[in-house]
Amino acid sequence: MRVVVTGGGGFLGVRLARALLSRADVSRLVLFDTAFPSQLPQDPRLEAVRGDIADARALAAAVTPDTAAVFHLAAVVSGAAEADFDLGYRVNLEGMRLLLERLRGCAHPPRVVYTSSVAAFGGDLPPVLDDATTPHPQTSYGTQKVIGEYLLADYTRKGFVDGRALRLPTVVVRPGKPNAAASSFASAIIREPLAGIDYDCPVGPQTAVWLLSPRRVVEALVLAHDSPPEAWGVDRVVNLPGITATVAEMVGALARVAGDGVAARVRYAPDPRIQAIVRTWPARFRTPRALAMGFRADPDVETVIRDYIADEGIRLG
Amino acid sequence: MRVVVTGGGGFLGVRLARALLSRADVSRLVLFDTAFPSQLPQDPRLEAVRGDIADARALAAAVTPDTAAVFHLAAVVSGAAEADFDLGYRVNLEGMRLLLERLRGCAHPPRVVYTSSVAAFGGDLPPVLDDATTPHPQTSYGTQKVIGEYLLADYTRKGFVDGRALRLPTVVVRPGKPNAAASSFASAIIREPLAGIDYDCPVGPQTAVWLLSPRRVVEALVLAHDSPPEAWGVDRVVNLPGITATVAEMVGALARVAGDGVAARVRYAPDPRIQAIVRTWPARFRTPRALAMGFRADPDVETVIRDYIADEGIRLG
Repeated sequence: MRVVVTGGGGFLGVRLARALLSRADVSRLVLFDTAFPSQLPQDPRLEAVRGDIADARALAAAVTPDTAAVFHLAAVVSGAAEADFDLGYRVNLEGMRLLLERLRGCAHPPRVVYTSSVAAFGGDLPPVLDDATTPHPQTSYGTQKVIGEYLLADYTRKGFVDGRALRLPTVVVRPGKPNAAASSFASAIIREPLAGIDYDCPVGPQTAVWLLSPRRVVEALVLAHDSPPEAWGVDRVVNLPGITATVAEMVGALARVAGDGVAARVRYAPDPRIQAIVRTWPARFRTPRALAMGFRADPDVETVIRDYIADEGIRLG
Repeated sequence: MRVVVTGGGGFLGVRLARALLSRADVSRLVLFDTAFPSQLPQDPRLEAVRGDIADARALAAAVTPDTAAVFHLAAVVSGAAEADFDLGYRVNLEGMRLLLERLRGCAHPPRVVYTSSVAAFGGDLPPVLDDATTPHPQTSYGTQKVIGEYLLADYTRKGFVDGRALRLPTVVVRPGKPNAAASSFASAIIREPLAGIDYDCPVGPQTAVWLLSPRRVVEALVLAHDSPPEAWGVDRVVNLPGITATVAEMVGALARVAGDGVAARVRYAPDPRIQAIVRTWPARFRTPRALAMGFRADPDVETVIRDYIADEGIRLG
């Protein structure tokens, strides 16, 4: 089958590509993105197509009518969508609309795995959210993600696609550099000290995060694709499992894994703009539906850190 | 102040226009629609602008930068949006986007009163819905209405507009002729017999409807506009109060008001397409938030029918 990953040049896209290329049923894998890392997996089935998701012609080049599955990861992240209102709507809403319209023209309704986000939630929240909690996003990014969920559900109901949306917890640990996502700190407090770099954390130590590791996210994307339509039924959105940890707890786990000297590289330098966004995100969920469907969380933060160290080939000093 | 009513040529638009023209604070009232009835209220402040909400140039002619308030009633109704997927998205989603973008350019953030719908709800529903029930629309119309709510909330949060969305029950009794709304039967079972016309009802007698009269809807639109921002807070959507009545109960009320001979003009001719849509709509709500804000329901179906007879100047034989 022909598979397309939008946002395929991002770190999750490349990791997902590796997982997909390990499968015999993937005959063609197209990564679609505006930029790619210098190193992509070497595989004759892999093709990298450069383009903007909000550009219908570029999208049409990547998503051909024989496409069987799309993993839609492309997005302008939370901080950037909040700073540039027009850009966020163009990529996160119009890009989604264009993708769904293109998929409507496919020979068979393709499976679409869509990455929504915990940023769907905000406002007056219960202490613990569950599968019945209504999204009241307090960012444009969260709004765009929720709208994408509703579009996917309607295109699915009409039989144009077979959609599955995952509300991702904050992904920890992201490799690379701090980015424009308001959640960037959650990875940076582990990644930067491990790289020997001091890090000024823009939120306080008691800030709690609902998190999931890249390994579990890639597993979840694949499971979301492979599960039969009956496993989803009418409701095509699920809150993924995760674990709750405060910044202080994450730094404590880092100290236990890598030593006090590494953990001491985290300092606190509150940024009101970031805090205002992060404050609207929930940190505690019950996720019975996802657990029943086979999605799973990481066991604890130390494991998340050890997996990151192993995946990135980091040597502890 | 300058006020624009989109869908201003429809029967609710014209009724709302009359209510607005009774106010001294309305200096200019623009009705924007693709078509208008032959008789509009005679008032020098009134202007009818013909155009399509999804046509940015036409919209710009109606919504000038000095606009202080918009009542956004224009929509492709449920049955039509289900039958013509592209038309529904063009008018109900792109029209909303274009309107909000145009309002973003206003001198002061305008108040926007948006008519959403009970069609926002569907799927596996509790017996009685309340203010916390999550919308899972099972029609494209319902999907588009919910997306409009989220867009309005985000534009409000950003300070571009001051939005207020009302989830309208089924409006009973609509004058005129049966239309493409799947809810058309709920008015037709009263209106057609009163006009001496036999009516084949496409749903069964035990079908329950959550309904509100045109008088109460116009009151609600005006109250939604007049209420201070603090009355809404972060949540800019409210389920309006209504009353629950089955088709059989409405026909019974018609018999009491207009006689058995009139009520006998209703016959049952089930239409699976209409039934499939109506079945997804809820009929019972608790609406504490709306009641606390001052919105109110009709006392009973007989009053709804008597108000219709009075408003339309119908003579009972």
